[in-house]
Amino acid sequence: MAKGLTTREQDYSRWYTDVIAAARLADYAPVKGCMVIMPNGYAIWEKMQGALDTLFKDTGHENAYFPLFIPESFMKREAEHVEGFAPECAVVTHGGGKELEESLYVRPTSETIIWSMYKNWIQSYRDLPILINQWANVVRWEMRTRLFLRTTEFLWQEGHTAHATSEEAVQETLQMIEVYRQFAEEFMAMPVIVGLKSDKEKFAGAIQTYCIEAMMQDCKALQAGTSHFLGQNFAKAFDVTYQTEAGQREHVWATSWGVSTRLVGALIMTHSDDRGLVLPPKLAPLQAVVVPIWRGDDERAAILERVDQFTADWKGHFSFKIDDRDNYRPGWKFNEWEQRGVPVRIEIGPKDLESNQAVMVRRDTGEKQFIAQSELRDTIVQTLQTIQVDLFNRAVERRENNSHYLESYEEFKQMLDDQGGFFYVHWCGSRDCEDRLQAETKATIRAIPMNNPKEKGQCLLCGGNSEERVVIAKAY
Amino acid sequence: MAKGLTTREQDYSRWYTDVIAAARLADYAPVKGCMVIMPNGYAIWEKMQGALDTLFKDTGHENAYFPLFIPESFMKREAEHVEGFAPECAVVTHGGGKELEESLYVRPTSETIIWSMYKNWIQSYRDLPILINQWANVVRWEMRTRLFLRTTEFLWQEGHTAHATSEEAVQETLQMIEVYRQFAEEFMAMPVIVGLKSDKEKFAGAIQTYCIEAMMQDCKALQAGTSHFLGQNFAKAFDVTYQTEAGQREHVWATSWGVSTRLVGALIMTHSDDRGLVLPPKLAPLQAVVVPIWRGDDERAAILERVDQFTADWKGHFSFKIDDRDNYRPGWKFNEWEQRGVPVRIEIGPKDLESNQAVMVRRDTGEKQFIAQSELRDTIVQTLQTIQVDLFNRAVERRENNSHYLESYEEFKQMLDDQGGFFYVHWCGSRDCEDRLQAETKATIRAIPMNNPKEKGQCLLCGGNSEERVVIAKAY
Repeated sequence: MAKGLTTREQDYSRWYTDVIAAARLADYAPVKGCMVIMPNGYAIWEKMQGALDTLFKDTGHENAYFPLFIPESFMKREAEHVEGFAPECAVVTHGGGKELEESLYVRPTSETIIWSMYKNWIQSYRDLPILINQWANVVRWEMRTRLFLRTTEFLWQEGHTAHATSEEAVQETLQMIEVYRQFAEEFMAMPVIVGLKSDKEKFAGAIQTYCIEAMMQDCKALQAGTSHFLGQNFAKAFDVTYQTEAGQREHVWATSWGVSTRLVGALIMTHSDDRGLVLPPKLAPLQAVVVPIWRGDDERAAILERVDQFTADWKGHFSFKIDDRDNYRPGWKFNEWEQRGVPVRIEIGPKDLESNQAVMVRRDTGEKQFIAQSELRDTIVQTLQTIQVDLFNRAVERRENNSHYLESYEEFKQMLDDQGGFFYVHWCGSRDCEDRLQAETKATIRAIPMNNPKEKGQCLLCGGNSEERVVIAKAY
Repeated sequence: MAKGLTTREQDYSRWYTDVIAAARLADYAPVKGCMVIMPNGYAIWEKMQGALDTLFKDTGHENAYFPLFIPESFMKREAEHVEGFAPECAVVTHGGGKELEESLYVRPTSETIIWSMYKNWIQSYRDLPILINQWANVVRWEMRTRLFLRTTEFLWQEGHTAHATSEEAVQETLQMIEVYRQFAEEFMAMPVIVGLKSDKEKFAGAIQTYCIEAMMQDCKALQAGTSHFLGQNFAKAFDVTYQTEAGQREHVWATSWGVSTRLVGALIMTHSDDRGLVLPPKLAPLQAVVVPIWRGDDERAAILERVDQFTADWKGHFSFKIDDRDNYRPGWKFNEWEQRGVPVRIEIGPKDLESNQAVMVRRDTGEKQFIAQSELRDTIVQTLQTIQVDLFNRAVERRENNSHYLESYEEFKQMLDDQGGFFYVHWCGSRDCEDRLQAETKATIRAIPMNNPKEKGQCLLCGGNSEERVVIAKAY
């Protein structure tokens, strides 16, 4: 089975690319740092988009589309923002056969172009809030790339909202990080820590950045989504004011929030195994596959007729496919669907015609069960739900097993090297200690967890006072 | 009503931009030639995407995503293609703070980058056909731009398929132009002529280009979609071959096909009137709006309670909204929903509480009707269907009234100037006559209609022999 797949233990990084190749999710593009999202990978992204788009619309957001190109002068309006992003940008200097008077940046994120438009759209408190999301491609020049996780061009959604008050904007920021948590846990079956970024790690131009952080199977952290409270920074940079009910002019308050195709990488690294891709049923483009087994044309006809019978009322309950290809053997088909991560496989051969049953195989556990054909549909529905829950629970268990509460820097460094994981440690809050941590261990402060219990302690690095623990890990 | 909208008769071009502004569909971006698609406009595009995506998947296609950037050397591989597109391209010369060794073109269309990938994906006849579509943004530098119809960046879908035989590729080309016809006529309620482009007008790199052409209300033609049979041009340029069942190596056959956000412009120009946007129900993001009329809080509460009662079972039948805003008067609301093109409006005031009825107003005709509240739901469902059909029939009638069969060049020029329209005329097939036509009249050959009746005649320009009529018009 699964010939040729590197195992996680042999080489985690190669295992990851092997899983992607075997499932035909993505391929390397001829342009440095870029990827091609192949149909099997894009179908997962489409499922993610569908679920997220519904969550966004249910919370009152609308979609729109803003230009790919941002004039250089716009990028420079917000000081921290340009410092953070300009070095990563692709720059268009020629268009229509001529050199441009002003260079255009290919958007690395759209705050600047969007706030230049909000200036025209916002006059009075009546025009607020603006709750807009955009599905788009963005470009950030990357030297060390990895399929899905870090590519020069990637697909994402970016929400950009405008509010009359600081409180409302903070509320929106929190609402959207909660939407991301819900999506990660309920759809991706991926448990996440919700928290605040340190000033060093926050978005360039934000007052506060909230994040969701997940633990991958190699015990590294992956930032899976961020929601930023931007204060009035962009409103001031683009001079966006509104008239209050009392008739005064005030600057508008902003948020932005985004997740990207990086989530597909997170999904792969959370659930897949040495046989290939494992998908949570809610995001599996194909949820069940039926592989009929026959020898000769007579058996083939009889089996397929039976399959047609018992699958006749499956439509609308889950997505499925009957793999009736003649030019591949059953074992080859089993392997292919395993590598592609289809949650449930049904095998039915000539002997099952008389006994009126079939074999159901769970992709996540490999467990096999004989099921009466008349009960297949309901059993599959139930099993898909079970798999969704089990995947989440196993991921939680793995994370708990690899979370450590430590007080000693030496012990921390040892465990970080030996086994990795999430480390709940005290930190004094200083940038010096944060920089030193990263320089000495390559680990970073991933999040200051929300609803964090207050607990007095001493900074892991300098011994200074601390009021709460933060989460430290090596990260993607 | 509809204060401030320029009428079509006053100035057709200003009317078009007024309709867009009043419905808040789009805005001009600060980057030359680019537009912002605002939520109301983007919602229409989403409806279009949803319908098209289903039609594509029903015909066996899968979505994927290919990179935005194309290396300059790739663009140059197909001679006609680079000649057609390179002058329109935006060019990235710097990335990550450095000058690039090779410039990157922002995709104007993706044949070259996609066929460079197909080379890796196609080895044998078993790998064919490949039936891939991509939803993406593309950039073509434009000097004279017009919202939706002609912008430097636009959104579109591009299908790119690979086949073992010429016949199969031709079949795909024809299938997809038929899908476009079906979408245009059944969803957009926009009748189209399906035909072949002349060699002069075909896609740069194609053997044949099929198109759908629609007539706008100013009697100009608009190319609404194209499907190209690319022969082996791109397979040869990128050396893409496959092993046949017999064991020989042959070049692969290709098609590509696309429609874009231009369709939103076509939709506006097909149905809208001097009061603003008119939308066919199948593509209206909001299909019905209820405007309750009250004075004082008591009336407000009673009316809204009643509205909640009779709308309770509307969900799932059509999309609707109850406009219970306090800070706008009914007349203002009527006007707003008219300008936004909502197909059906329901008005209900205090008098209607006793009579148990409400007024239904059709956006397309302005027709008002009293309807019993208990029958509103079914009447609206029926009326939405009727509006969809009526819009199509009116557009067909307008096109027929403005289609002319002519034999004399002088008469043609006179009518073209006086009233415009589609002109069915004989053409000898020569490029000279085609160039002369355009130079002298600014009209072009829009299509050689499919299933065209054979009819001997003399070329409108040179008097040479012709076997069939072609359609000539001024075009967007």
